[in-house]
Amino acid sequence: MRDSFTHTSGTGGKNLDQRILELFHAKKGGVVSGEEFSRVLEVSRTAVWKHIKSLKDLGYQIVAVPSQGYRLVTSPDILIPAEIAAGLTVTRIGRRIICFRETDSTNEVAFRLAEEGVEEGTVVIAEKQRRGKGRLGRRWESPAGVNLYCSVVLRPPILPMQAAQLTFLSTVAVARAVAETAALRPFIKWPNDVLINGMKVAGLLNEMSAETEKVNFVVLGIGVNINMQRTQFPDDLRHPATSLALEAGKDVSRLYFTRNLLKTLDELYDSYLARGYAPVREEWLARCDICGRKVKVSFQESGITGVAVGIDDYGALLLQLPDGRVEKVLAGDVTIL
Amino acid sequence: MRDSFTHTSGTGGKNLDQRILELFHAKKGGVVSGEEFSRVLEVSRTAVWKHIKSLKDLGYQIVAVPSQGYRLVTSPDILIPAEIAAGLTVTRIGRRIICFRETDSTNEVAFRLAEEGVEEGTVVIAEKQRRGKGRLGRRWESPAGVNLYCSVVLRPPILPMQAAQLTFLSTVAVARAVAETAALRPFIKWPNDVLINGMKVAGLLNEMSAETEKVNFVVLGIGVNINMQRTQFPDDLRHPATSLALEAGKDVSRLYFTRNLLKTLDELYDSYLARGYAPVREEWLARCDICGRKVKVSFQESGITGVAVGIDDYGALLLQLPDGRVEKVLAGDVTIL
Repeated sequence: MRDSFTHTSGTGGKNLDQRILELFHAKKGGVVSGEEFSRVLEVSRTAVWKHIKSLKDLGYQIVAVPSQGYRLVTSPDILIPAEIAAGLTVTRIGRRIICFRETDSTNEVAFRLAEEGVEEGTVVIAEKQRRGKGRLGRRWESPAGVNLYCSVVLRPPILPMQAAQLTFLSTVAVARAVAETAALRPFIKWPNDVLINGMKVAGLLNEMSAETEKVNFVVLGIGVNINMQRTQFPDDLRHPATSLALEAGKDVSRLYFTRNLLKTLDELYDSYLARGYAPVREEWLARCDICGRKVKVSFQESGITGVAVGIDDYGALLLQLPDGRVEKVLAGDVTIL
Repeated sequence: MRDSFTHTSGTGGKNLDQRILELFHAKKGGVVSGEEFSRVLEVSRTAVWKHIKSLKDLGYQIVAVPSQGYRLVTSPDILIPAEIAAGLTVTRIGRRIICFRETDSTNEVAFRLAEEGVEEGTVVIAEKQRRGKGRLGRRWESPAGVNLYCSVVLRPPILPMQAAQLTFLSTVAVARAVAETAALRPFIKWPNDVLINGMKVAGLLNEMSAETEKVNFVVLGIGVNINMQRTQFPDDLRHPATSLALEAGKDVSRLYFTRNLLKTLDELYDSYLARGYAPVREEWLARCDICGRKVKVSFQESGITGVAVGIDDYGALLLQLPDGRVEKVLAGDVTIL
């Protein structure tokens, strides 16, 4: 796999890899002749041959059928722009997708691109992160080839105080994509964990650049454990963790999940811009498993115990205390008692 | 003037320019011999001569007194670390000062340094900004040599929602420094303008990098019109503006003002970390001229009218509407009716 490859979806921006794969996919396993490639793609047969070879290097099994052409036998489950963008119709999120074989942190790359002015909706994905970032300076375990590590650049016309709303939006998107792709029943834990059977399957780290009255940009960082195996989890995990494959009892297509997640994010963000935060909060509450339950929230050295009764417009957890008062909790780790 | 020079205060970090100036200042206009420089500073007489020459290039009038040594006759009012740091005792803000002859925007430089991990309290100052930034994407007029353009890197242990508190803190610091340095009576206009006789004399643009539950860093951007003359203001100013010199009727030492501002900021920030936001809010309210008055707040296409009654913990303006309800206003431009 090359170290980094970029691609913009939409006819104008399609690269040759994507167009070759589309022709193969259109034939549903049939043979495509070199002449047809050359004619449809308007490139030389040497160029076609070069790109077929690079696709083979990526793990595509493509065989030459003597005097007929090429046949695509199997595709690897890799996250490359050409495959993710195929069949993906979005308004903003995923219009530009940049994939890395390996990088320090997709959030860092996305933040830098956002500072340089990259368009809203740009998605950065890596097969492996050398220094995956978790919440509050923690590490996010990011082995190669089994999970999804992605970051999305947004430029919402909101105030910094409202930025937490996008944390809830991305959490809802992940939960919905998990439910739809893997037919599992995920629950959300405040503020932004997605759990299956009480074990963490996804983590979100949203970062922003803002001035006092204006968000410059937000980076939604999303890590989902897709096909990670039990032995790949470190021993010293703070909370029990799992993957979609472990819970579903079979491997889950990373490509399909990623496409589904980007589409869901795009729909939710489009609705957020048009109709505001209320629908996001409603779905968050419906997918949350702590409302009505007694919980403890720990932050640094202190803790507070009460019954979770909802979230407010700025993402605070509303906690009803024993004396009846409702306290707004802005940050911390939740334990269900 | 060199293009950029850096300096860290404290004995270890003093550079030769600063130590030469200190020796001159200690003599109060007297002659310092080359031999004395060489002995006290522990450098060669050639090095002394070279640095004396570079100080002369900066505008210092230094004369050689035959067979006696050097005498400092006059100092220019320039913002260089060696002069700003002289006599400045601070806990955090100003421990490192970086000055530019000219840069695009001190906020941009400070933001980049903060991302690279520069220590809390680092101050970036420029004699001129090519693209000075104002609030909400506006431009901040930044001619050379007459004003102060500075940015301060902070790493407060607070939530993003609380970041507006630092906007109020820096506004209070500027108002206090204006009152003390120039013996003028400044007023604060919500959220962060400092006015004299109804005209704007300073602007603040605070920017931050944050994740949902944690501020990574804040850059306090402060622009103060010090010795700007009437003819240097552009014709198309949104609000009437003035400078300390225009209001005081005489030039104001930029060096003295800058030192005073950094010291005030340092004290206020130290108090904020130890005692929280309440004292800042109190002083803000005392220096604000809109409380109890009927105002209109405009934001984008909409406007709201009411009596200003205070600010909340997150910086919102509390506006009492005609029907008695108190509305929280998060952003906008205030006009006193």
